[in-house]
Amino acid sequence: MTKQKDAPQTEPLIDVAPLSRALEKFATDRDWAQFHSPKNLVMALTGEVGELTEIFQWMTEEQSHTAGINPETAQAVKEELADVQLYLVRLASVLGINLNEAVEHKLQRNAEKYPADKARGSSKKYTEL
Amino acid sequence: MTKQKDAPQTEPLIDVAPLSRALEKFATDRDWAQFHSPKNLVMALTGEVGELTEIFQWMTEEQSHTAGINPETAQAVKEELADVQLYLVRLASVLGINLNEAVEHKLQRNAEKYPADKARGSSKKYTEL
Amino acid sequence: MTKQKDAPQTEPLIDVAPLSRALEKFATDRDWAQFHSPKNLVMALTGEVGELTEIFQWMTEEQSHTAGINPETAQAVKEELADVQLYLVRLASVLGINLNEAVEHKLQRNAEKYPADKARGSSKKYTEL
Amino acid sequence: MTKQKDAPQTEPLIDVAPLSRALEKFATDRDWAQFHSPKNLVMALTGEVGELTEIFQWMTEEQSHTAGINPETAQAVKEELADVQLYLVRLASVLGINLNEAVEHKLQRNAEKYPADKARGSSKKYTEL
Repeated sequence: MTKQKDAPQTEPLIDVAPLSRALEKFATDRDWAQFHSPKNLVMALTGEVGELTEIFQWMTEEQSHTAGINPETAQAVKEELADVQLYLVRLASVLGINLNEAVEHKLQRNAEKYPADKARGSSKKYTEL
Repeated sequence: MTKQKDAPQTEPLIDVAPLSRALEKFATDRDWAQFHSPKNLVMALTGEVGELTEIFQWMTEEQSHTAGINPETAQAVKEELADVQLYLVRLASVLGINLNEAVEHKLQRNAEKYPADKARGSSKKYTEL
Repeated sequence: MTKQKDAPQTEPLIDVAPLSRALEKFATDRDWAQFHSPKNLVMALTGEVGELTEIFQWMTEEQSHTAGINPETAQAVKEELADVQLYLVRLASVLGINLNEAVEHKLQRNAEKYPADKARGSSKKYTEL
Repeated sequence: MTKQKDAPQTEPLIDVAPLSRALEKFATDRDWAQFHSPKNLVMALTGEVGELTEIFQWMTEEQSHTAGINPETAQAVKEELADVQLYLVRLASVLGINLNEAVEHKLQRNAEKYPADKARGSSKKYTEL
């Protein structure tokens, strides 16, 4: 009964395992694994972030806030966000890196690096999220 | 009773909700939401992909395959992959976009666009994963 | 005698030949040409644009206008702009591409694509400069 | 007579002034200067580097060496290199930064940072050109 209370919270921050498996199968079915070196996938990730950037480049910051609901741009934004996520998961997969562990570790480091009481309201205090 | 059995498998390809909530709290605690316009977050994403790229730029493709296990570079790679994932989830969050839906939709489109029997073994057939 | 007068103005839009030669010598002196494949140099270019982006990511557009004069950031901006220019010229060099010709051709195309009277004042009319 | 001998070499490494003026006029004629904040132009530069990257992402390094002469890809490469150069010069222009001075300063710094005799043949010795 009390074990549940004592048990550590083990819910992962992210779970990308099903997508990782789906992308592995997708590549294998097309014999594309030969092109998926980490170096190539990093470039593919860059290309997608470039496409995402092109959607936002002439927007004001205020305009950018509605890019997810504006029917003219929302679909394009969703597709580019998806592409970035696809390549990121595929890249972690071929590198044998556990994205959830990496994310948990980084978030912990950021919390130590930017204590809430010292970093409040200043973008100068940080270069990372 | 049997309805649960008949229900389709609805396991999401990715689940980033806990991370999304953690980043929301992280930003709120530091009063950083004011800096997190989608436009700014797209730039932050670009910066992290740039750092990731710098790790791989002089590697051969073959060398890049061991970047996840080489103790000299694995830690750096993990941190950059994590940073990309953090900003991607935060960006989707402020845009109100469901990353899992976007990913599922894109993967379905890619499957239609690149039929396994026609795309096999050719990088010319595709520009996307 | 008068032919020189009649000759069309042939001043190039850019002249990067001295820098191209300097970078060639710089690489040869260090035996670095072996690393300067176009693929690698494109990644190096990405890395530098990423560093440039990190300087501007949390600035408002208004703040960004003074980044060239603000003593805190001007030096960093100059260095990143220089890095982008260095890699761009080196990349064109190893590819055997004449940057001035490429630029003149592109500017001509842009002029045809975006006639001044039709494109005036609208960022929607164009995705390029 | 001897003055020429004593005079310092003052040939600039690059001269982009004519292009800078042409782009200024191009933007003014279309009333586009309003969109050309440094922040926006950095994003535009990112977008073009992303397009350049997409051309090279699935190539081997060896294949990338012929991208400037292969008729299938040379034209695309030239256009993207031109776009990067256009936005880079426009960005320096709106920031009031002299690209040639920035380049000369950076090249001098790189020469000090990577002495030819110590950096020879090692990509580990440097992260910059």
